[in-house]
Amino acid sequence: DVQPVDPLDEWISPPFEPTRRGENLFARGATDDKGQMFTHIKSAEAWLKTEGKLPVNLKYIIEGEEEVSSTNLFPFIERERKKLACDVAVISDSSQFAAGRPAITYGLRGIAYYELRLTGPKQDLHSGTFGGAVTNPAGALCRMIAALVDKEGRIQVPGFYDDVVALTEQERQQFISLAFDEAAFMRQIDVAGLSGEAGFSTLERRWARPTCDVNGLTSGYQGQGAKTVLPARASAKFSFRLVPNQDPKKISGTLERMLRGLLPPGIKMELIDFHGAPGVVVPLDSPYMAAAIRAIERSFGRKPVFMREGGSIPIVTTFREQLGVDTLLLGWGLDDDNAHSPNEKFNIADFHRGIQASAYLWAELGAVKRP
Amino acid sequence: DVQPVDPLDEWISPPFEPTRRGENLFARGATDDKGQMFTHIKSAEAWLKTEGKLPVNLKYIIEGEEEVSSTNLFPFIERERKKLACDVAVISDSSQFAAGRPAITYGLRGIAYYELRLTGPKQDLHSGTFGGAVTNPAGALCRMIAALVDKEGRIQVPGFYDDVVALTEQERQQFISLAFDEAAFMRQIDVAGLSGEAGFSTLERRWARPTCDVNGLTSGYQGQGAKTVLPARASAKFSFRLVPNQDPKKISGTLERMLRGLLPPGIKMELIDFHGAPGVVVPLDSPYMAAAIRAIERSFGRKPVFMREGGSIPIVTTFREQLGVDTLLLGWGLDDDNAHSPNEKFNIADFHRGIQASAYLWAELGAVKRP
Repeated sequence: DVQPVDPLDEWISPPFEPTRRGENLFARGATDDKGQMFTHIKSAEAWLKTEGKLPVNLKYIIEGEEEVSSTNLFPFIERERKKLACDVAVISDSSQFAAGRPAITYGLRGIAYYELRLTGPKQDLHSGTFGGAVTNPAGALCRMIAALVDKEGRIQVPGFYDDVVALTEQERQQFISLAFDEAAFMRQIDVAGLSGEAGFSTLERRWARPTCDVNGLTSGYQGQGAKTVLPARASAKFSFRLVPNQDPKKISGTLERMLRGLLPPGIKMELIDFHGAPGVVVPLDSPYMAAAIRAIERSFGRKPVFMREGGSIPIVTTFREQLGVDTLLLGWGLDDDNAHSPNEKFNIADFHRGIQASAYLWAELGAVKRP
Repeated sequence: DVQPVDPLDEWISPPFEPTRRGENLFARGATDDKGQMFTHIKSAEAWLKTEGKLPVNLKYIIEGEEEVSSTNLFPFIERERKKLACDVAVISDSSQFAAGRPAITYGLRGIAYYELRLTGPKQDLHSGTFGGAVTNPAGALCRMIAALVDKEGRIQVPGFYDDVVALTEQERQQFISLAFDEAAFMRQIDVAGLSGEAGFSTLERRWARPTCDVNGLTSGYQGQGAKTVLPARASAKFSFRLVPNQDPKKISGTLERMLRGLLPPGIKMELIDFHGAPGVVVPLDSPYMAAAIRAIERSFGRKPVFMREGGSIPIVTTFREQLGVDTLLLGWGLDDDNAHSPNEKFNIADFHRGIQASAYLWAELGAVKRP
């Protein structure tokens, strides 16, 4: 499935009508994740059309609820453990490191997503008559959200970093060897500067360190011009990206206590806990990983780099826990594909290279001797 | 003029058909401000019907745009200064302190209203892929807005309090003598606690101290459930209520410098300055004030109390600047008249007492010896 298309008026072509412009196909889900998922179907089709059979026993799980918490997927996997038994899982829901630099993603961040709802007076009040004496829920919200992160970019929820597994020196060196082009990154998103947790590089901040992001703010008057209200309510959606071995449940508890401690007089709060998933790292030295490296190199003409990814794919943890298998995260997309945003796209040549890599992968995996 | 009537279905009788129920007349504008304005016309009519002439030279300004910023009123007054020349102005757009406790409002707060718009990346980004390294405009907004006020409720804009005229000991005692019922106030707006500038009472905070209120917040995802975006934009509408002798223009300058100093890397800001008006206090010892006190006491049977009001009536400043006169703010309404809300009302006995007080006032003002 996909994320909502809004703002719709920023789409150049209709989001649900795939449209080719130049080298790209534009559509909601072009890469994330209809397009990438489709490469693994086309590759099986190619085997069946040319060889008449597959070189490995394949089982597909195609779900339509990933962007809305996969409510049914997790119980389904638990229920159908035997039917789903396998040696390794493959998901293409990540990206290349850069155009022409294919990558295998070996680490994903988890997530803990919340909405903080504050309620003050029973209705919006005149800010002249009441302002100064009645606690303003929108002001309180800003203070409480601001308190989550200090000036050094460190998250202030008590014990937040206790279970964080630090990057190894080898990983830091591997990140450095990728020669990430920070200036190009800033141009891509059109910002004049970056910020984040002090003492870490941009790649480390994006891939291997936990974060706190405000995802939405709503309060009071949002129309044109000025309206002098003291709002009755204010809410913020915000989320932490988590890394191994942080536990979202543990964080929910300490977060709620911290926020209640910050609550000013005259304000009631509700903290909605939307969903949580831990971060995950898969081993780099398995025979399945070696198979994936060979398949990608044959198709893309270049060895994949190893990267981590800042987003979350909670099913990877479930595969590990329920089926006892690791997941190969092989991405054909690009960082600038506008996932979750207007004008999402997929490079058509990468789409084809992805199909080829998938086709090679089935053969490589079929040849792996099971331990 | 009046505020929109919505929600219409909460009106017990049609908003534009004045309806008597019990001791009150219900209608949109019953007190604010058709009803109160009308008392000053009925009082003149009474003089003409009984005495055949007025005891003082009266000029009326009746405007219909007060609730939509009085766009035409200010240039009109500037243009017609000579025609409008007078010794004192009278406005009834305020309230009694409580039922049976008539009041003269001698101070109004000013206002300085802004919108802070922050822009980060060129579009909403995936908070997993980019979060941690790209400055989040909504997070930055919360930090910047939170920085405007410290934990003691003191506004942190440099020099903000420099020109504030402190309450006199006499004023503080006068406020205390009003025996403001804080518990009833909290019940009225349904809050369990109050907060504000440390060291000041609720009435002082509402009437005589400057404030900072957030009037609206907008950023990112505002729909149901969770969306993992790092928003491209975030904005806050916020305003300061001002007291004499704070200058909104001076505050705009220091505010903008302060906010620019707080701006994190990768964020651009725009500060929109909507409108500013200084606070005003009228002298308590003028012969016109003495005339008003006598008129009210004769009609209501009780000396008026002196109060201030937290809101703004910008025309009072204009009368001072353009016509060189002070304004008598004489209110016949009540705090619970539902101004701007469904079922606005005016107590009919207060309506008649208001007409009488106005009639006495014309005589009292006619007797004042001009300096």
